[in-house]
Amino acid sequence: MKNEIHNIVMIGAGNVATHLAMAFHDKGKKIVQIYSLHEKDAELLAQKVDATFTTDNKEIILHADLYIIAVNDSAIKDVVNKLHLGNQLVVHTSGSVEMEILSACSTSYGVIYLLQTFTKEHKVDFSHIPFCIEANNKENLQLLRNLAELLTDDVRNISSEQRSIIHLAAVFTCNFTNHMYVLAEEILKKNNIPFDILKPLLMETVMKIKDHDPVEIQTGPAQRNDLLVIEKHLQMLAQFPEYAEIYKLITQSIVNKSQHND
Amino acid sequence: MKNEIHNIVMIGAGNVATHLAMAFHDKGKKIVQIYSLHEKDAELLAQKVDATFTTDNKEIILHADLYIIAVNDSAIKDVVNKLHLGNQLVVHTSGSVEMEILSACSTSYGVIYLLQTFTKEHKVDFSHIPFCIEANNKENLQLLRNLAELLTDDVRNISSEQRSIIHLAAVFTCNFTNHMYVLAEEILKKNNIPFDILKPLLMETVMKIKDHDPVEIQTGPAQRNDLLVIEKHLQMLAQFPEYAEIYKLITQSIVNKSQHND
Repeated sequence: MKNEIHNIVMIGAGNVATHLAMAFHDKGKKIVQIYSLHEKDAELLAQKVDATFTTDNKEIILHADLYIIAVNDSAIKDVVNKLHLGNQLVVHTSGSVEMEILSACSTSYGVIYLLQTFTKEHKVDFSHIPFCIEANNKENLQLLRNLAELLTDDVRNISSEQRSIIHLAAVFTCNFTNHMYVLAEEILKKNNIPFDILKPLLMETVMKIKDHDPVEIQTGPAQRNDLLVIEKHLQMLAQFPEYAEIYKLITQSIVNKSQHND
Repeated sequence: MKNEIHNIVMIGAGNVATHLAMAFHDKGKKIVQIYSLHEKDAELLAQKVDATFTTDNKEIILHADLYIIAVNDSAIKDVVNKLHLGNQLVVHTSGSVEMEILSACSTSYGVIYLLQTFTKEHKVDFSHIPFCIEANNKENLQLLRNLAELLTDDVRNISSEQRSIIHLAAVFTCNFTNHMYVLAEEILKKNNIPFDILKPLLMETVMKIKDHDPVEIQTGPAQRNDLLVIEKHLQMLAQFPEYAEIYKLITQSIVNKSQHND
Protein backbone atom coordinates (compact mmCIF):
# COMPACT_ATOMS: atom_id res chain seq x y z
CA MET A 1 0.00 0.00 0.00
CA LYS A 2 1.38 3.39 -1.04
CA ASN A 3 1.10 6.20 1.49
CA GLU A 4 2.01 9.07 -0.80
CA ILE A 5 1.38 10.07 -4.39
CA HIS A 6 4.53 11.01 -6.28
CA ASN A 7 3.75 10.58 -9.98
CA ILE A 8 0.63 11.78 -11.74
CA VAL A 9 -0.73 11.22 -15.24
CA MET A 10 -3.09 14.02 -16.26
CA ILE A 11 -5.83 13.01 -18.66
CA GLY A 12 -7.19 16.15 -20.29
CA ALA A 13 -5.58 19.48 -21.09
CA GLY A 14 -8.44 21.94 -20.56
CA ASN A 15 -8.94 24.52 -17.82
CA VAL A 16 -9.20 22.24 -14.81
CA ALA A 17 -6.42 19.90 -16.04
CA THR A 18 -4.12 22.85 -16.66
CA HIS A 19 -4.67 24.57 -13.33
CA LEU A 20 -4.43 21.32 -11.34
CA ALA A 21 -1.34 20.03 -13.14
CA MET A 22 0.47 23.34 -12.68
CA ALA A 23 -0.51 23.55 -9.01
CA PHE A 24 0.72 20.01 -8.22
CA HIS A 25 3.87 20.61 -10.25
CA ASP A 26 4.53 23.76 -8.21
CA LYS A 27 4.21 21.66 -5.03
CA GLY A 28 6.88 19.23 -6.20
CA LYS A 29 4.75 16.43 -7.58
CA LYS A 30 5.95 14.85 -10.82
CA ILE A 31 3.49 15.15 -13.69
CA VAL A 32 4.82 12.31 -15.80
CA GLN A 33 2.47 12.57 -18.76
CA ILE A 34 -0.38 14.54 -20.31
CA TYR A 35 -2.89 12.56 -22.36
CA SER A 36 -5.37 14.48 -24.51
CA LEU A 37 -6.96 14.09 -27.92
CA HIS A 38 -6.10 17.75 -28.52
CA GLU A 39 -2.42 17.56 -29.40
CA LYS A 40 -1.63 21.26 -29.18
CA ASP A 41 -3.25 21.61 -25.76
CA ALA A 42 -1.44 18.48 -24.55
CA GLU A 43 1.91 19.76 -25.79
CA LEU A 44 1.37 23.21 -24.29
CA LEU A 45 0.50 21.83 -20.88
CA ALA A 46 3.33 19.26 -21.03
CA GLN A 47 5.81 22.09 -21.58
CA LYS A 48 4.47 23.99 -18.60
CA VAL A 49 4.92 21.08 -16.18
CA ASP A 50 7.98 19.29 -17.67
CA ALA A 51 5.89 16.29 -18.71
CA THR A 52 5.71 14.07 -21.77
CA PHE A 53 2.46 14.02 -23.72
CA THR A 54 0.52 11.68 -25.97
CA THR A 55 -2.69 11.60 -27.96
CA ASP A 56 -2.67 7.78 -28.17
CA ASN A 57 -4.36 5.98 -25.30
CA LYS A 58 -2.18 2.90 -25.93
CA GLU A 59 0.83 5.02 -24.94
CA ILE A 60 -0.53 6.04 -21.55
CA ILE A 61 2.07 5.25 -18.90
CA LEU A 62 0.80 2.42 -16.69
CA HIS A 63 2.86 2.72 -13.51
CA ALA A 64 1.89 6.15 -12.16
CA ASP A 65 0.56 6.64 -8.62
CA LEU A 66 -2.48 8.62 -9.74
CA TYR A 67 -4.49 9.20 -12.93
CA ILE A 68 -6.58 12.38 -12.93
CA ILE A 69 -9.35 12.40 -15.52
CA ALA A 70 -10.13 16.10 -16.00
CA VAL A 71 -12.22 16.07 -19.17
CA ASN A 72 -15.80 17.06 -20.04
CA ASP A 73 -18.44 14.98 -18.24
CA SER A 74 -19.59 13.43 -21.48
CA ALA A 75 -16.04 12.24 -22.33
CA ILE A 76 -15.33 10.49 -19.01
CA LYS A 77 -16.94 7.21 -20.09
CA ASP A 78 -14.86 7.08 -23.29
CA VAL A 79 -11.68 7.61 -21.29
CA VAL A 80 -12.63 4.95 -18.75
CA ASN A 81 -13.21 2.44 -21.54
CA LYS A 82 -9.70 3.05 -22.86
CA LEU A 83 -7.94 2.72 -19.49
CA HIS A 84 -6.98 -0.64 -18.01
CA LEU A 85 -5.24 0.18 -14.77
CA GLY A 86 -5.49 -2.85 -12.55
CA ASN A 87 -5.25 -1.28 -9.08
CA GLN A 88 -3.66 2.10 -9.89
CA LEU A 89 -5.60 4.97 -8.28
CA VAL A 90 -7.78 6.93 -10.72
CA VAL A 91 -10.01 9.98 -10.04
CA HIS A 92 -12.24 12.25 -12.05
CA THR A 93 -12.96 15.91 -11.30
CA SER A 94 -16.61 16.18 -12.28
CA GLY A 95 -19.37 17.70 -10.18
CA SER A 96 -22.15 15.59 -11.59
CA VAL A 97 -20.71 12.19 -12.58
CA GLU A 98 -20.88 9.34 -10.06
CA MET A 99 -17.64 7.93 -8.71
CA GLU A 100 -18.63 4.34 -9.56
CA ILE A 101 -18.20 4.99 -13.28
CA LEU A 102 -14.46 4.58 -12.60
CA SER A 103 -14.78 1.01 -11.31
CA ALA A 104 -14.66 -0.16 -14.92
CA CYS A 105 -11.00 0.79 -15.26
CA SER A 106 -9.45 0.19 -11.82
CA THR A 107 -10.11 -1.30 -8.41
CA SER A 108 -8.85 1.94 -6.77
CA TYR A 109 -10.78 5.07 -7.56
CA GLY A 110 -12.13 8.35 -6.25
CA VAL A 111 -13.11 11.93 -7.03
CA ILE A 112 -11.44 15.30 -6.56
CA TYR A 113 -14.05 17.95 -7.30
CA LEU A 114 -12.82 21.54 -7.10
CA LEU A 115 -15.59 23.95 -6.32
CA GLN A 116 -14.34 26.76 -8.51
CA THR A 117 -14.73 28.21 -12.00
CA PHE A 118 -11.59 28.30 -14.13
CA THR A 119 -10.52 30.22 -17.18
CA LYS A 120 -7.15 29.46 -18.69
CA GLU A 121 -5.57 32.90 -18.54
CA HIS A 122 -6.75 33.73 -15.06
CA LYS A 123 -4.34 32.35 -12.43
CA VAL A 124 -6.21 30.84 -9.48
CA ASP A 125 -5.25 30.91 -5.82
CA PHE A 126 -6.18 27.42 -4.63
CA SER A 127 -5.54 28.00 -0.96
CA HIS A 128 -9.18 28.40 0.14
CA ILE A 129 -10.96 26.54 -2.67
CA PRO A 130 -13.12 23.70 -1.36
CA PHE A 131 -11.84 20.34 -2.62
CA CYS A 132 -14.62 17.74 -2.40
CA ILE A 133 -13.06 14.28 -2.20
CA GLU A 134 -14.49 10.77 -2.30
CA ALA A 135 -12.85 7.36 -2.70
CA ASN A 136 -13.72 3.68 -2.83
CA ASN A 137 -11.98 3.00 0.51
CA LYS A 138 -10.43 4.75 3.50
CA GLU A 139 -6.84 4.34 2.36
CA ASN A 140 -7.49 5.98 -1.00
CA LEU A 141 -9.51 8.71 0.68
CA GLN A 142 -6.52 9.46 2.91
CA LEU A 143 -4.17 9.53 -0.09
CA LEU A 144 -6.42 12.03 -1.83
CA ARG A 145 -6.78 14.12 1.32
CA ASN A 146 -3.01 14.31 1.76
CA LEU A 147 -2.64 15.37 -1.85
CA ALA A 148 -5.43 17.96 -1.76
CA GLU A 149 -4.09 19.46 1.47
CA LEU A 150 -0.95 20.45 -0.42
CA LEU A 151 -3.09 22.97 -2.31
CA THR A 152 -5.95 24.02 -0.04
CA ASP A 153 -6.99 24.34 3.59
CA ASP A 154 -10.56 23.26 2.76
CA VAL A 155 -10.80 19.53 1.98
CA ARG A 156 -14.21 17.92 2.53
CA ASN A 157 -15.44 14.33 2.30
CA ILE A 158 -18.44 14.54 -0.03
CA SER A 159 -20.46 11.63 -1.40
CA SER A 160 -21.46 11.40 -5.06
CA GLU A 161 -25.03 12.29 -4.12
CA GLN A 162 -24.00 15.36 -2.12
CA ARG A 163 -21.62 16.36 -4.88
CA SER A 164 -24.37 16.46 -7.48
CA ILE A 165 -26.48 18.63 -5.11
CA ILE A 166 -23.53 21.01 -4.70
CA HIS A 167 -23.05 21.09 -8.46
CA LEU A 168 -26.70 21.99 -8.95
CA ALA A 169 -26.43 24.77 -6.36
CA ALA A 170 -23.28 25.98 -8.08
CA VAL A 171 -25.17 26.30 -11.35
CA PHE A 172 -27.57 28.72 -9.64
CA THR A 173 -24.75 30.55 -7.86
CA CYS A 174 -22.30 30.85 -10.72
CA ASN A 175 -23.84 30.22 -14.15
CA PHE A 176 -27.27 31.71 -13.48
CA THR A 177 -25.97 34.82 -11.73
CA ASN A 178 -23.58 35.36 -14.61
CA HIS A 179 -26.54 35.14 -16.99
CA MET A 180 -28.26 37.88 -14.96
CA TYR A 181 -25.20 40.03 -15.70
CA VAL A 182 -25.49 39.10 -19.38
CA LEU A 183 -29.13 40.22 -19.49
CA ALA A 184 -28.39 43.42 -17.58
CA GLU A 185 -25.57 44.26 -19.97
CA GLU A 186 -27.80 43.70 -22.98
CA ILE A 187 -30.60 45.86 -21.58
CA LEU A 188 -28.10 48.65 -20.91
CA LYS A 189 -26.35 48.28 -24.26
CA LYS A 190 -29.63 48.70 -26.16
CA ASN A 191 -29.84 52.06 -24.41
CA ASN A 192 -26.19 53.05 -24.85
CA ILE A 193 -25.35 52.81 -21.18
CA PRO A 194 -22.06 51.08 -20.31
CA PHE A 195 -22.26 47.99 -18.06
CA ASP A 196 -19.43 49.28 -15.87
CA ILE A 197 -21.92 51.56 -14.11
CA LEU A 198 -23.28 48.46 -12.36
CA LYS A 199 -19.97 47.01 -11.21
CA PRO A 200 -19.74 48.71 -7.80
CA LEU A 201 -23.29 47.50 -7.10
CA LEU A 202 -22.62 43.93 -8.06
CA MET A 203 -19.37 43.84 -6.08
CA GLU A 204 -21.18 45.13 -2.97
CA THR A 205 -24.00 42.59 -3.47
CA VAL A 206 -21.46 39.79 -3.26
CA MET A 207 -19.44 41.34 -0.43
CA LYS A 208 -22.58 41.35 1.72
CA ILE A 209 -22.91 37.60 1.23
CA LYS A 210 -19.64 37.16 3.11
CA ASP A 211 -21.30 38.18 6.36
CA HIS A 212 -25.02 37.68 5.78
CA ASP A 213 -27.52 35.02 4.92
CA PRO A 214 -28.71 35.88 1.38
CA VAL A 215 -32.38 35.73 2.34
CA GLU A 216 -31.82 38.42 4.99
CA ILE A 217 -30.33 40.99 2.63
CA GLN A 218 -32.79 40.78 -0.25
CA THR A 219 -33.93 44.26 -1.40
CA GLY A 220 -35.72 45.70 -4.42
CA PRO A 221 -39.22 45.97 -5.87
CA ALA A 222 -40.02 42.24 -5.62
CA GLN A 223 -38.99 42.09 -1.96
CA ARG A 224 -41.23 45.13 -1.26
CA ASN A 225 -43.91 43.67 -3.55
CA ASP A 226 -43.93 47.10 -5.25
CA LEU A 227 -46.44 46.37 -8.00
CA LEU A 228 -46.12 49.77 -9.69
CA VAL A 229 -42.39 49.39 -10.28
CA ILE A 230 -42.75 45.73 -11.29
CA GLU A 231 -45.43 46.65 -13.83
CA LYS A 232 -43.25 49.47 -15.20
CA HIS A 233 -40.29 47.11 -15.55
CA LEU A 234 -42.39 44.56 -17.43
CA GLN A 235 -43.50 47.28 -19.85
CA MET A 236 -39.86 48.28 -20.37
CA LEU A 237 -39.05 44.63 -21.13
CA ALA A 238 -41.70 44.41 -23.87
CA GLN A 239 -38.90 44.38 -26.46
CA PHE A 240 -37.26 41.41 -24.64
CA PRO A 241 -40.10 38.89 -24.16
CA GLU A 242 -37.70 36.15 -23.01
CA TYR A 243 -36.27 38.42 -20.32
CA ALA A 244 -39.75 39.54 -19.29
CA GLU A 245 -40.60 35.89 -18.55
CA ILE A 246 -37.46 35.52 -16.45
CA TYR A 247 -38.27 38.78 -14.66
CA LYS A 248 -41.80 37.60 -13.86
CA LEU A 249 -40.79 34.18 -12.62
CA ILE A 250 -37.94 35.35 -10.36
CA THR A 251 -39.99 38.27 -9.06
CA GLN A 252 -42.83 35.88 -8.15
CA SER A 253 -40.34 33.58 -6.44
CA ILE A 254 -38.92 36.48 -4.38
CA VAL A 255 -42.45 37.58 -3.44
CA ASN A 256 -43.34 34.01 -2.39
CA LYS A 257 -40.20 33.75 -0.31
CA SER A 258 -40.63 37.12 1.42
CA GLN A 259 -44.24 36.35 2.35
CA HIS A 260 -43.22 32.94 3.60
CA ASN A 261 -40.60 34.57 5.84
CA ASP A 262 -42.91 37.24 7.31
CA MET B 1 -28.24 82.27 -7.86
CA LYS B 2 -26.41 80.16 -5.26
CA ASN B 3 -23.21 78.49 -6.35
CA GLU B 4 -22.78 76.16 -3.40
CA ILE B 5 -24.97 74.07 -1.17
CA HIS B 6 -24.32 74.62 2.54
CA ASN B 7 -27.47 73.56 4.36
CA ILE B 8 -29.43 70.38 3.74
CA VAL B 9 -32.79 69.13 5.00
CA MET B 10 -32.98 65.34 4.84
CA ILE B 11 -36.45 63.93 4.28
CA GLY B 12 -36.44 60.29 5.32
CA ALA B 13 -34.39 58.39 7.88
CA GLY B 14 -33.94 54.99 6.22
CA ASN B 15 -30.81 53.41 4.76
CA VAL B 16 -30.15 55.84 1.92
CA ALA B 17 -31.04 58.90 4.01
CA THR B 18 -28.77 57.75 6.83
CA HIS B 19 -25.75 56.96 4.67
CA LEU B 20 -26.09 60.17 2.62
CA ALA B 21 -26.66 62.45 5.60
CA MET B 22 -23.65 61.02 7.43
CA ALA B 23 -21.44 61.28 4.36
CA PHE B 24 -22.33 64.92 3.68
CA HIS B 25 -21.99 65.72 7.38
CA ASP B 26 -18.49 64.18 7.32
CA LYS B 27 -17.63 66.47 4.39
CA GLY B 28 -18.58 69.58 6.35
CA LYS B 29 -22.09 70.17 5.04
CA LYS B 30 -24.66 71.23 7.62
CA ILE B 31 -27.58 68.84 7.93
CA VAL B 32 -30.05 71.27 9.48
CA GLN B 33 -33.01 68.95 9.93
CA ILE B 34 -34.27 65.40 9.56
CA TYR B 35 -37.94 64.98 8.68
CA SER B 36 -39.47 61.52 8.95
CA LEU B 37 -42.77 60.02 10.04
CA HIS B 38 -40.73 57.49 12.04
CA GLU B 39 -39.81 59.51 15.12
CA LYS B 40 -37.20 57.12 16.51
CA ASP B 41 -35.37 56.83 13.20
CA ALA B 42 -35.47 60.61 12.77
CA GLU B 43 -34.10 61.19 16.26
CA LEU B 44 -31.36 58.60 15.84
CA LEU B 45 -30.16 60.06 12.56
CA ALA B 46 -30.45 63.62 13.90
CA GLN B 47 -28.11 62.69 16.75
CA LYS B 48 -25.57 61.23 14.34
CA VAL B 49 -25.34 64.38 12.23
CA ASP B 50 -25.99 67.13 14.83
CA ALA B 51 -29.34 68.02 13.28
CA THR B 52 -32.80 68.83 14.61
CA PHE B 53 -35.64 66.53 13.67
CA THR B 54 -39.38 66.64 13.21
CA THR B 55 -42.25 64.36 12.32
CA ASP B 56 -44.54 67.30 11.43
CA ASN B 57 -44.34 68.51 7.85
CA LYS B 58 -45.50 71.97 8.92
CA GLU B 59 -42.27 72.31 10.91
CA ILE B 60 -39.96 71.62 7.97
CA ILE B 61 -37.40 74.42 7.76
CA LEU B 62 -38.04 76.48 4.63
CA HIS B 63 -34.73 78.28 3.97
CA ALA B 64 -32.32 75.37 3.34
CA ASP B 65 -30.20 75.19 0.19
CA LEU B 66 -31.24 71.62 -0.62
CA TYR B 67 -34.01 69.17 0.31
CA ILE B 68 -33.19 65.51 -0.24
CA ILE B 69 -36.23 63.23 -0.41
CA ALA B 70 -34.83 59.78 0.40
CA VAL B 71 -37.99 57.78 1.07
CA ASN B 72 -39.66 54.75 -0.54
CA ASP B 73 -40.77 55.35 -4.12
CA SER B 74 -44.41 55.05 -3.16
CA ALA B 75 -44.06 57.77 -0.48
CA ILE B 76 -42.44 60.41 -2.70
CA LYS B 77 -45.73 61.78 -3.96
CA ASP B 78 -47.08 62.22 -0.43
CA VAL B 79 -43.96 64.12 0.57
CA VAL B 80 -44.13 66.32 -2.52
CA ASN B 81 -47.74 67.22 -1.73
CA LYS B 82 -46.71 68.40 1.73
CA LEU B 83 -43.77 70.53 0.58
CA HIS B 84 -44.18 74.10 -0.69
CA LEU B 85 -40.68 75.29 -1.43
CA GLY B 86 -40.98 78.11 -3.95
CA ASN B 87 -37.58 77.92 -5.66
CA GLN B 88 -35.54 75.96 -3.11
CA LEU B 89 -33.69 73.07 -4.73
CA VAL B 90 -35.27 69.66 -4.06
CA VAL B 91 -34.11 66.21 -5.21
CA HIS B 92 -35.21 62.64 -4.78
CA THR B 93 -32.97 59.57 -4.76
CA SER B 94 -35.17 57.03 -6.55
CA GLY B 95 -34.09 54.86 -9.46
CA SER B 96 -37.51 54.53 -10.99
CA VAL B 97 -39.47 57.74 -10.26
CA GLU B 98 -39.41 60.53 -12.84
CA MET B 99 -37.80 63.80 -11.92
CA GLU B 100 -40.85 65.83 -12.99
CA ILE B 101 -42.86 64.58 -10.02
CA LEU B 102 -40.91 67.21 -8.01
CA SER B 103 -42.18 70.14 -10.09
CA ALA B 104 -45.29 70.17 -7.90
CA CYS B 105 -43.32 71.43 -4.90
CA SER B 106 -40.58 73.68 -6.32
CA THR B 107 -39.35 75.35 -9.48
CA SER B 108 -35.82 73.98 -8.81
CA TYR B 109 -35.48 70.22 -8.77
CA GLY B 110 -33.36 67.27 -9.66
CA VAL B 111 -32.31 63.71 -8.84
CA ILE B 112 -29.34 62.14 -7.07
CA TYR B 113 -29.55 58.39 -7.66
CA LEU B 114 -26.83 56.34 -5.97
CA LEU B 115 -26.21 53.10 -7.75
CA GLN B 116 -25.56 51.06 -4.63
CA THR B 117 -27.34 48.78 -2.17
CA PHE B 118 -27.34 49.91 1.43
CA THR B 119 -27.88 48.21 4.74
CA LYS B 120 -27.83 50.29 7.88
CA GLU B 121 -25.07 48.53 9.81
CA HIS B 122 -22.73 48.14 6.87
CA LYS B 123 -20.60 51.30 6.39
CA VAL B 124 -20.27 52.21 2.72
CA ASP B 125 -17.26 53.67 0.94
CA PHE B 126 -18.82 56.18 -1.44
CA SER B 127 -15.66 57.04 -3.31
CA HIS B 128 -16.33 54.97 -6.46
CA ILE B 129 -20.12 54.66 -6.30
CA PRO B 130 -21.79 56.01 -9.44
CA PHE B 131 -23.96 59.03 -8.63
CA CYS B 132 -26.54 59.55 -11.41
CA ILE B 133 -27.64 63.16 -11.41
CA GLU B 134 -30.33 65.07 -13.28
CA ALA B 135 -31.76 68.56 -12.82
CA ASN B 136 -34.32 70.90 -14.34
CA ASN B 137 -31.59 73.30 -15.56
CA LYS B 138 -27.84 73.61 -16.04
CA GLU B 139 -27.24 75.65 -12.91
CA ASN B 140 -28.95 73.14 -10.65
CA LEU B 141 -27.15 70.30 -12.42
CA GLN B 142 -23.84 72.00 -11.65
CA LEU B 143 -24.82 72.49 -8.01
CA LEU B 144 -25.64 68.79 -7.69
CA ARG B 145 -22.45 67.79 -9.50
CA ASN B 146 -20.32 69.88 -7.14
CA LEU B 147 -22.05 68.33 -4.16
CA ALA B 148 -21.80 64.74 -5.45
CA GLU B 149 -18.12 65.18 -6.28
CA LEU B 150 -17.46 65.68 -2.58
CA LEU B 151 -18.30 62.01 -2.10
CA THR B 152 -17.44 60.17 -5.31
CA ASP B 153 -15.22 60.28 -8.38
CA ASP B 154 -18.02 58.89 -10.57
CA VAL B 155 -20.76 61.47 -11.22
CA ARG B 156 -22.84 60.94 -14.37
CA ASN B 157 -25.56 62.98 -16.06
CA ILE B 158 -28.42 60.50 -16.49
CA SER B 159 -31.93 61.27 -17.74
CA SER B 160 -35.05 59.90 -16.05
CA GLU B 161 -35.52 57.44 -18.90
CA GLN B 162 -31.93 56.17 -18.69
CA ARG B 163 -32.20 56.00 -14.92
CA SER B 164 -35.19 53.67 -15.07
CA ILE B 165 -33.28 51.42 -17.50
CA ILE B 166 -30.34 51.34 -15.11
CA HIS B 167 -32.66 50.56 -12.23
CA LEU B 168 -34.15 47.65 -14.20
CA ALA B 169 -30.68 46.32 -14.99
CA ALA B 170 -29.76 46.71 -11.32
CA VAL B 171 -32.71 44.50 -10.36
CA PHE B 172 -31.24 41.72 -12.51
CA THR B 173 -27.71 42.35 -11.26
CA CYS B 174 -28.40 42.75 -7.57
CA ASN B 175 -31.82 41.44 -6.51
CA PHE B 176 -32.07 38.52 -8.93
CA THR B 177 -28.51 37.29 -8.38
CA ASN B 178 -29.12 37.44 -4.64
CA HIS B 179 -32.22 35.31 -5.16
CA MET B 180 -30.07 32.75 -6.98
CA TYR B 181 -27.99 32.60 -3.78
CA VAL B 182 -31.19 32.16 -1.76
CA LEU B 183 -32.28 29.21 -3.90
CA ALA B 184 -28.82 27.63 -3.82
CA GLU B 185 -28.73 27.93 -0.05
CA GLU B 186 -32.13 26.31 0.28
CA ILE B 187 -31.21 23.41 -2.01
CA LEU B 188 -28.04 22.83 0.01
CA LYS B 189 -29.77 23.19 3.37
CA LYS B 190 -32.32 20.50 2.48
CA ASN B 191 -29.32 18.21 2.06
CA ASN B 192 -27.43 19.36 5.17
CA ILE B 193 -24.63 21.03 3.21
CA PRO B 194 -23.54 24.48 4.44
CA PHE B 195 -23.82 27.38 1.96
CA ASP B 196 -20.30 28.56 2.80
CA ILE B 197 -18.91 25.85 0.51
CA LEU B 198 -20.08 27.99 -2.44
CA LYS B 199 -18.60 31.29 -1.30
CA PRO B 200 -15.18 31.01 -3.00
CA LEU B 201 -16.99 30.14 -6.23
CA LEU B 202 -19.35 33.07 -6.08
CA MET B 203 -16.56 35.48 -5.19
CA GLU B 204 -14.51 34.30 -8.18
CA THR B 205 -17.55 34.56 -10.47
CA VAL B 206 -17.83 38.24 -9.61
CA MET B 207 -14.09 38.92 -9.71
CA LYS B 208 -14.01 37.72 -13.30
CA ILE B 209 -16.62 40.33 -14.21
CA LYS B 210 -14.10 43.03 -13.32
CA ASP B 211 -12.03 42.18 -16.39
CA HIS B 212 -14.39 40.29 -18.72
CA ASP B 213 -17.61 40.74 -20.57
CA PRO B 214 -20.11 38.43 -18.79
CA VAL B 215 -21.20 36.75 -22.01
CA GLU B 216 -17.59 35.68 -22.67
CA ILE B 217 -17.11 33.89 -19.37
CA GLN B 218 -20.32 31.88 -19.20
CA THR B 219 -19.69 28.22 -18.29
CA GLY B 220 -21.76 25.27 -17.11
CA PRO B 221 -24.20 22.69 -18.48
CA ALA B 222 -26.48 25.21 -20.21
CA GLN B 223 -23.56 26.88 -21.99
CA ARG B 224 -22.38 23.45 -23.22
CA ASN B 225 -26.02 22.46 -23.90
CA ASP B 226 -25.25 19.33 -21.84
CA LEU B 227 -28.71 17.74 -21.95
CA LEU B 228 -27.81 14.81 -19.69
CA VAL B 229 -26.75 17.06 -16.81
CA ILE B 230 -29.67 19.43 -17.37
CA GLU B 231 -32.12 16.51 -17.25
CA LYS B 232 -30.48 15.17 -14.09
CA HIS B 233 -30.72 18.60 -12.43
CA LEU B 234 -34.40 18.89 -13.30
CA GLN B 235 -35.03 15.49 -11.72
CA MET B 236 -33.19 16.63 -8.59
CA LEU B 237 -35.40 19.73 -8.49
CA ALA B 238 -38.61 17.68 -8.54
CA GLN B 239 -39.16 18.57 -4.87
CA PHE B 240 -38.84 22.31 -5.76
CA PRO B 241 -41.22 22.81 -8.72
CA GLU B 242 -40.89 26.61 -8.58
CA TYR B 243 -37.09 26.37 -8.78
CA ALA B 244 -37.33 23.81 -11.58
CA GLU B 245 -39.25 26.37 -13.64
CA ILE B 246 -36.59 29.00 -12.97
CA TYR B 247 -33.87 26.48 -13.86
CA LYS B 248 -35.59 25.62 -17.16
CA LEU B 249 -36.20 29.20 -18.21
CA ILE B 250 -32.69 30.51 -17.43
CA THR B 251 -31.08 27.42 -18.94
CA GLN B 252 -33.07 27.93 -22.15
CA SER B 253 -32.06 31.59 -22.20
CA ILE B 254 -28.36 30.67 -21.82
CA VAL B 255 -28.69 28.07 -24.59
CA ASN B 256 -30.37 30.63 -26.87
CA LYS B 257 -27.66 33.17 -26.17
CA SER B 258 -24.76 30.74 -26.73
CA GLN B 259 -26.19 29.56 -30.04
CA HIS B 260 -26.79 33.14 -31.10
CA ASN B 261 -23.13 33.92 -30.37
CA ASP B 262 -21.68 30.92 -32.20
